[in-house]
Amino acid sequence: MIALYANLGYNREVKRMRNQKINLLPEIQNRSSVLLYEEDREIEPEKLAAVMEAARLAPSARNLQPWRYIVVQEKTQRDRMVKAMNAVNFWASSAPCLITLISHPPLGYTGEGKCYYLYDCGLSVMSLVIEAQHQELKCRQIAAFEENKIRGILAIPADWQVIVVVAIGYQGDLEREKPHLLKRWGIEAYSRVESRLLNSRTRKTMEEIVSYGKFNNQDTRNNNQTNSKSQ
Amino acid sequence: MIALYANLGYNREVKRMRNQKINLLPEIQNRSSVLLYEEDREIEPEKLAAVMEAARLAPSARNLQPWRYIVVQEKTQRDRMVKAMNAVNFWASSAPCLITLISHPPLGYTGEGKCYYLYDCGLSVMSLVIEAQHQELKCRQIAAFEENKIRGILAIPADWQVIVVVAIGYQGDLEREKPHLLKRWGIEAYSRVESRLLNSRTRKTMEEIVSYGKFNNQDTRNNNQTNSKSQ
Repeated sequence: MIALYANLGYNREVKRMRNQKINLLPEIQNRSSVLLYEEDREIEPEKLAAVMEAARLAPSARNLQPWRYIVVQEKTQRDRMVKAMNAVNFWASSAPCLITLISHPPLGYTGEGKCYYLYDCGLSVMSLVIEAQHQELKCRQIAAFEENKIRGILAIPADWQVIVVVAIGYQGDLEREKPHLLKRWGIEAYSRVESRLLNSRTRKTMEEIVSYGKFNNQDTRNNNQTNSKSQ
Repeated sequence: MIALYANLGYNREVKRMRNQKINLLPEIQNRSSVLLYEEDREIEPEKLAAVMEAARLAPSARNLQPWRYIVVQEKTQRDRMVKAMNAVNFWASSAPCLITLISHPPLGYTGEGKCYYLYDCGLSVMSLVIEAQHQELKCRQIAAFEENKIRGILAIPADWQVIVVVAIGYQGDLEREKPHLLKRWGIEAYSRVESRLLNSRTRKTMEEIVSYGKFNNQDTRNNNQTNSKSQ
């Protein structure tokens, strides 16, 4: 069902882009956030190096590079981290690698009340995620966790913020693993994962997010997701 | 001189990555922020569409997509915008297109004191910038401007923040344009651009930004730029 729904949206997008002669970078076109990984398949060191290299090369305000990453692959430690996440992220236990991004305001540029460290962290992670796609790896970013517990597990000082945990690995096959996962997660949790995958593939329309010459506010706060394609 | 210096750094990086068998996405490997554009060369509509499509497809916390973009190509309006920027950004007048990103906290997810709208905006712009590189376009992000003036020019309500202005277009040839630019900018401004290009190509080392298993704080605040390669 997921595959069918996603393909309908995907085909519509592809058709629209062909009509507009849009030739999108495949790593951006085909990127999506997954909720199941091949748990026992480790990431090759050279692939992990490429992914971190992409994060490193990102631009930042005044070139301050306010990102610090902590890579965890060891299973016991990963399990502790997943327990520190909100229950909704139970799926993360299948990821063979968790990359935690930490930062805090003094590392970045501040201008007119805006702390750019968070913005710059986003630049760096998007570079990481697109490179992951290039390496045939999949990611999902996790922002819902008990920050203090993650700090404890990774020896992060109290004045640093845990921004996101990026789950990364080879994509698992939800359809094929369904019987196994139903047993392991239960029907309710399995259905929640299925519906999250559907929902994450929607996007606002181009008209809702882009205006020309001046701001044309299309307030869509009550209508958040109106268009197709992958998170 | 710039080309020589940059190539030295670039060659060192390429050698290091070959040794580590790193096969980086060319759009990430070759991306850099420029300070001179081909002023009279407009961006093809299908290329601009691809760039905005990449921005649209970015992931975000709870899929809230807290980014709104305003595209300006008309010269009079661009000139007004450049005048609203800090003097250091005078070079932006050569960009045939300025894309302004606006947002504010209510659009995004907030968790444990962290407003993810800024982080998500970073995700979206990095997708835009990498797609631009794929379309043979170059960008530079500008964060230093008088926010209220930009608001006025683009009819942005007071409760919205102007996050960045992305200058985008085909790269100009600084060496070839040097005589012309010396006349137009003066020697001091020209030298400033030259030295910014050198400086923006440095990055922290991998050891400074990545640790394994737990946070290994390499405080480099007094030693911000120690490694080579492109902003």
